[in-house]
Parts: sequence; structure tokens; C-alpha cells
Amino acid sequence: MNNTFLNSLLVGIVLLMGIPAAAQQVNKKDSTMLRQIFDMALLEGKSYDWLDDLSNKIGGRLSGSLEAEKAIAFTKEELEKLGLDRVWLQPVMVPKWTRGVPEYAFIETAPGITTLANICALGGSVATPDGGLKAQVVEVQGLDELEKLGREKIEGKIVFYNRPMQANLIATFNAYGGCVDQRYSGAKEAAKYGAVGVVVRSMNLRQDDFPHTGAMSYGDTPEKLRIPACAISTNGANYLSAALSLKPDLLFYFKQTCKMYPDVQSYNVIGEITGSEFPDRYMVVGGHLDSWDLADGSHDDGAGCVQSMEVLRLFKKLNYKPRHSIRVVLFMNEENGLRGGTKYAEEAKAKNEPHVFALESDAGGFTPRGFSFDSDEANFNKVLSWEPLFKPYLIHYFEKGGSGADIGPLKNGKMVLAGLRPDSQRYFDYHHAANDTFDAVNKRELELGAASMASLMYLFDTYGVQTGPASKK
Amino acid sequence: MNNTFLNSLLVGIVLLMGIPAAAQQVNKKDSTMLRQIFDMALLEGKSYDWLDDLSNKIGGRLSGSLEAEKAIAFTKEELEKLGLDRVWLQPVMVPKWTRGVPEYAFIETAPGITTLANICALGGSVATPDGGLKAQVVEVQGLDELEKLGREKIEGKIVFYNRPMQANLIATFNAYGGCVDQRYSGAKEAAKYGAVGVVVRSMNLRQDDFPHTGAMSYGDTPEKLRIPACAISTNGANYLSAALSLKPDLLFYFKQTCKMYPDVQSYNVIGEITGSEFPDRYMVVGGHLDSWDLADGSHDDGAGCVQSMEVLRLFKKLNYKPRHSIRVVLFMNEENGLRGGTKYAEEAKAKNEPHVFALESDAGGFTPRGFSFDSDEANFNKVLSWEPLFKPYLIHYFEKGGSGADIGPLKNGKMVLAGLRPDSQRYFDYHHAANDTFDAVNKRELELGAASMASLMYLFDTYGVQTGPASKK
Repeated sequence: MNNTFLNSLLVGIVLLMGIPAAAQQVNKKDSTMLRQIFDMALLEGKSYDWLDDLSNKIGGRLSGSLEAEKAIAFTKEELEKLGLDRVWLQPVMVPKWTRGVPEYAFIETAPGITTLANICALGGSVATPDGGLKAQVVEVQGLDELEKLGREKIEGKIVFYNRPMQANLIATFNAYGGCVDQRYSGAKEAAKYGAVGVVVRSMNLRQDDFPHTGAMSYGDTPEKLRIPACAISTNGANYLSAALSLKPDLLFYFKQTCKMYPDVQSYNVIGEITGSEFPDRYMVVGGHLDSWDLADGSHDDGAGCVQSMEVLRLFKKLNYKPRHSIRVVLFMNEENGLRGGTKYAEEAKAKNEPHVFALESDAGGFTPRGFSFDSDEANFNKVLSWEPLFKPYLIHYFEKGGSGADIGPLKNGKMVLAGLRPDSQRYFDYHHAANDTFDAVNKRELELGAASMASLMYLFDTYGVQTGPASKK
Repeated sequence: MNNTFLNSLLVGIVLLMGIPAAAQQVNKKDSTMLRQIFDMALLEGKSYDWLDDLSNKIGGRLSGSLEAEKAIAFTKEELEKLGLDRVWLQPVMVPKWTRGVPEYAFIETAPGITTLANICALGGSVATPDGGLKAQVVEVQGLDELEKLGREKIEGKIVFYNRPMQANLIATFNAYGGCVDQRYSGAKEAAKYGAVGVVVRSMNLRQDDFPHTGAMSYGDTPEKLRIPACAISTNGANYLSAALSLKPDLLFYFKQTCKMYPDVQSYNVIGEITGSEFPDRYMVVGGHLDSWDLADGSHDDGAGCVQSMEVLRLFKKLNYKPRHSIRVVLFMNEENGLRGGTKYAEEAKAKNEPHVFALESDAGGFTPRGFSFDSDEANFNKVLSWEPLFKPYLIHYFEKGGSGADIGPLKNGKMVLAGLRPDSQRYFDYHHAANDTFDAVNKRELELGAASMASLMYLFDTYGVQTGPASKK
């Protein structure tokens, strides 16, 4: 595009800025506040610098790691600089799982004829035997194929789950949801049929060489029956599948030294601006401070943490004094335990702290498209009345739906939960893989998300949440 | 985000897919067709492979270059494989400007004390003298400062235009529009005050080391009064500005060997599916095949070309027989002349080919957000009635506004022009710079754009364009 074309385009932008229908529904004070929030976030934002430090000075923050401890200290210190009314750490015990030395795998099509494969251990997996594990492979498209195959065809083998994410689903989280049972329950189910190990196709819509880790569970499988599980890159999965079709009796070798330790002490990081009118009614904005260990977790969920911190910083900078007590909560251990979210909800209940609204950002630092809401009709209709306020910022998506894992346990009565919904197309290119790094985050996109969150928080604070008896639907 | 959270999220997605209000307004045949278009584009799309070839096998396609010739041959050949009714080349004479050897620049704060600066010649600029050009620098924030400074303070110096893009504008094209006069007219205006050269801050919202080229014009400045103009990277601009505040009499040196040649023969590439009902009424979908020369121009506008080709490919694959004659036009020379767009419109007029609709993609291969329309009320209202059809694909933006530079000259009577509007946040990170390369394009985002374009084209073909007397507004 060149500049000759700009005049006509600018006419369109000017037209857009003056939409009369929308303007009629907009309260001037609110639209001014949103403009101030977006201006401050885009012109003097702090979220990107924070993410730089969190990602590049600290790095991956798996629960129980030294990096997680550093991240707790760093974010607490940064929150303390903001002049909030309270900043504190909330103790929580978390699982500690370590990856050990880098994993190693190859495909052996004939004795001595091997091809390396890019794998990583799934989070929570046991190690292979010391010398690694070598076995024949049985490829399946999902858990339900195991029963059809039966013990006879599975016993002593490695099960290779290779159902890909469905590319024609527009919401990539839907495609993820359609596959992730292979990762989460694959080992538990395969062990029932005597499998000795599990290889899972990475949850990634791209063809590339990154293996993607993520949580798996053995359920109640006895310890001695637990089999090691790893993820293989999408390119690796295609290669393995093609090799199997040519040579069904090939051998797959992998070695991993991961290990689960006893729980260790960790913390949620919390900062609060105490409400001027309703100090005992709480609103929460947050993300999770832990990440997987293969990268610095800039999208998952460094972005959500710094955006949440930015919400409170923007309020302070704009001298906005909220009516409700507003807390930023950086939850620990979302990835492999959800202990932080659970602990926060337990304490809120024990201390009888009524929460009326909570907002989470945990879907990447991409251009915000809007929000999804776990809400009753009355409060959701109030949200819909705010749509015109968001339209100048190209925030269009306001739908009922999920919110965030960490805030889920807080749900109580008619409180409203919300999740930031950024553009999801690229999220699984990076999710839980070694390329989820700072350079994959765009400064403007991150800042637009923070400003959108601050705007929604401002509106809920200003207009409150109806917690009275349910209106008829 | 982990998978524990997915169940609640999926509930939301299912709710979204079943929006009853939207569904009521949707024609089943149309929604089925859009679903088929998106499925085909995402599961068996060809646009990404085409872009790979165009970008990585051919490269930057500046008008008059060998690469532009190769791109014409390649795209014509690919269109011929699609089984269209006609594929042809439309001759057009284009300007030929070459960059010459890589540009070279430094900042000299004291004799022999120099710092290199990342620059590139602006498109259309003259060369510096053979030995380069060294002079003092006067920094300005825009064209209007020249008059205030006057000839006395400008004569014999290099004018440094340093007004940055405004980061708090949400539509980045608006921020571009607010700055690009410095690049386009900076040399012409500075020459009037006796400046010897011009350095322009790159049109880029990021801080980085890439200089961004783009068209400039000398207007009617006599040839011997034309002064060389270059762009400097945003990091370089900040450095130069800081150095000037410490050392106002520093010297800036730059050397460039760019040159304008006489016009050369080139072509628009055109393919057509002849209409079954209205073969003599035309609809066009297109992008521009030329690009700047610093990179392979994957976003600007390789993406728009392959998306436009994909629209016709999808129609053929889905066995859709359009009522109107639908043409894909790959326009030559958008960047520095608009000769292709002008020629196409001239010939359409000369041959009395009535065009009723044209759609351009020239804003990058990012996630599509919607379209802007140059349209009368009646046709625009028809577009708005299609909104529910697009909602499942997260296409929300339907506004009046500009369309595309190449299709602009076609505008005639009540025909409708439209432009694809992808997310614009990252566009100027790459625009006209050495990093506008294939790896910066995401396959899904590109394909979603192509599918959105095919959907809009299908709807206009199905429901037609009202070209009768204007309805009262």
C-alpha cells in the first residue's frame, strides 16, 4: 500500500470516529476515561518493559523453580513501586517437577539406521529407564482406538497419539480442546493395555520442529505402572507416521530423566487499591505467574501478568480512585496444579471477602478482540450496553463463555467472571514450546490488551455488579 | 493456559456457534457456502504455498525489475492451471527506478568520530554526488516548520524530518497518514529553502534498526534542483536526534546511487471466470504484484495477490459458477506510479465493460477483521445484512471507508469498492522494510483473509449490486 491511497482511507477513519448511532449510547465521562486509559497504555505503557524483564532477565517460571521464586520477588517489588494500598504474598504449596537433562529420541528403521526426533517430556511424566526405552510403535488417532486394538496389539509397545488439531475451526482453542485429551490422559489410558510409553503429537497448528509440553495426569494409576510420556513436534509426528506406514515394525527410542519431588513453598503475588466506597467488595484482575520451562513463557502467561499489573498502574497514574477494592493477583501454578487459584479462592471464602468481579488474561498477548463472560443475564446485558464504548478500539467480541482457570474457583453466586479474548490464530504456534519468547510479543498488541482490561475493570467498578436475586431470563 | 480450563471455554464456543438471534437472519444456503469456503481455504488452501514461491523463489518485485517479470510469468502460469475461462496479460508501461549499491551513512560528531546509521534511499530519489554528501543537519517535526526556520537556517544543510507515528491511534494507517507527508513531499519542500538532502524518520511504530523505504515525489522541481532523500531507522532517528541535542553542528554523511530510467514494458496479470447469467457485468478481486525491493514483500502485497488468486481457485474447487464475470487482477506498479490500476480502469472504460464490484487486499496478510466500503447507502445496507453470516468467522468490521489504491480508478457510478481490513497493529513493523518476508506471515491468518474475501465476493455475486438510481439518503 502506498500513500496515494491514504486520503480515501482517512475519510473512512474519520467517518468511523464519528459514528452517530454509537455516540448516542456513550456516556461522555466513560468515553473520556477509556480514551485516557488507551492513551496512557500506548504512549507511556509499562507492560512491555515488565515483560522484557520477566522474560529475559528471569525466564521460564515452572512452579517450584528458582525462576518462579525470582518472578515472585520481582513482581512484588514492582507492585510496591506503584503506591498501591497493600502488596503481599499469599503462601501456597506447589508441586515441583523437573525436566532433568534434555530429552533424546530417535526412530530406528533398521539396526543402526536412525533419525533423530524432536521430543520433550510431558509435564508430570515419569522418566524412562536409565538407559532409555526402545520399543515398537502403534499409531492411533485417539484414546478410543485403544480398546479396539486391545492389549494384544498394544502390550510392550509405545502408543503414538497422532490426531492433529483441526485447522478449519476458527477458534484455535476449540481445535486444542479437540486434541488435548491425548496429551492429558494418553499415558494413563495406554498403560491399561500394557503400553510401555507414549508419544503425543504436539498441540500445534503449524508444521514445525518444536515439541510442545503441557500437563498430563496418571490419575490413580499405581506408581509402578506409570509409563513415560513425551510430545513430538508436528514435523516429527508426520515423519514418524510416514515411516511407520513404510516400516510398521520400526523402533522408537527415547530417554528422559524428569522427576516429581515433594511439594514446595511458593506464593501468589497480590496488590490492592482499597475501594473508596465499597472497601469490602473485591474485584480481581490477574494472570498466572508460573509458566512451562522450555521458554520464558512470554505469551503463556507473562503477558497476562504484566497486563494485570498495568491495569492497577494505569488507575494510579490516571488518579482513578476505584469504588471497590481492586486486586491484581499473579497466581502461582496454573500450569500443573492450579494451586494458586484454589488457594486464593479458599482464603477469600475463609476471610469472608465477597468478590463481585474477576478478569483473567491467559490467552496470549495478541491483539485483543474482546471478552467472554461467565455471567447471569442481567450483568451480561449491562456489558452489552458498553459495546459502543469499546468500538473505537476495535474491541467487538462480547460473548458468554469461559473466563480463566485461576479465577474459576472464585465463582460464587452472581459474581461475574471474564476472560480477555485476544486473537487466537497464532497462540498455539508458541504455546508450551521453546519459541514462546519475548520477541513473539508485539508491544502494541500487548498494550491494547492491558488497556481493554483496564477499561472493562473501570466500567464494572463504576456501574457495579448486580448480586441481588436473579432477574427472569 | 492449561486444559483443565477448557471445558468451560468450550461451553462458550458452543454457545457462540448457536447464537439464535444471528441464526435467524442467515440464509442456510449462504451459511453453508461460507462454511465450505472457510473449510477449503483452511484445510486445502493454496495461498500460503503460492506466497512461499512468490517470496522465496522470486523475491522483491519492484516495477521494471527482473523479479517483477518473473512474478508475472509465475502467477500467469499458476492461474492457467486453475481452469479459468480466460487468463491474459494486460500491457502497461511502468517507471523503472533502481536502488544501486547499498546505501551508506554515518553521523560525525567530531572529525573522524563517526557512528554508522541505517538508511535506505526513498523510492524515486536521486543519487547523492559520487563521493556522497556531508552536511550539517536541521531537525524538524514536519513540513510546516520549514517556513518558520526560513532559508537562512536550512540552506546548505540536510533536513531531518523526525515526527514519529502517533502510537495512541488505534488504526495504524491513521498514524501512517499523519506522518507520510514527510516522506512523500519532504525533499520537494526542503529544496525550496536550499536544503542539500533529506533524512526521514522511518514510518514504523516500533523501535528497531530497519529503514523503511516508500514513494517520494519531486513534483515539478526542476531536475537540477532535486535533492537526495533517504529514510533512517527509528533507532537511528532517535540516536541522531539525541546526538543533535548534544552537538548541534554535527555532520551527517550519506551516499546512495539510485537512479531513474525511462519507462519499461510490464503487465497486469488477469484471470476470469465468465459469468453464467451476466457475462458482461464484471467483479474484480485483486492485489498488487509489484513490491518494494528491500524484501520479498510478503505482506505488501504478496499476501493480497495470493489471496485474490485463492478466491477464484476456491470457486473452481467448490464448483461455484458465478453469475457475474469474476476477474482476479494482479496490478503492476501500485507502489510508485499506480500505472496498473490506472490502465485497467482505462481499458475497462474503453471496452465498455461495466464493473459493479471490486475488492482489494493490500493491508497485509494478518487476521482479517472485516472490510471497508466505498459504497452508497443501499448497497452498504445490504452488506450490513450479511454481518451474521460472517460472525462465526470472527469477522466484525463492516464500515464505510477507503477500499484499495489499484481499484480506485475503476470507481464509476454506483459500483461498490471494498478493501479487506486485516488487523493493522503489526503492519508498519514490516511495511517497505527488509523484514517484510515470508516468515512474517502466518498461514492461518493469510487463509482466513482469502476465505473472507471469497465469502464477500460470493455474496455480491449472489445478491448483485444495485446500480439503479440512487435511493434517498
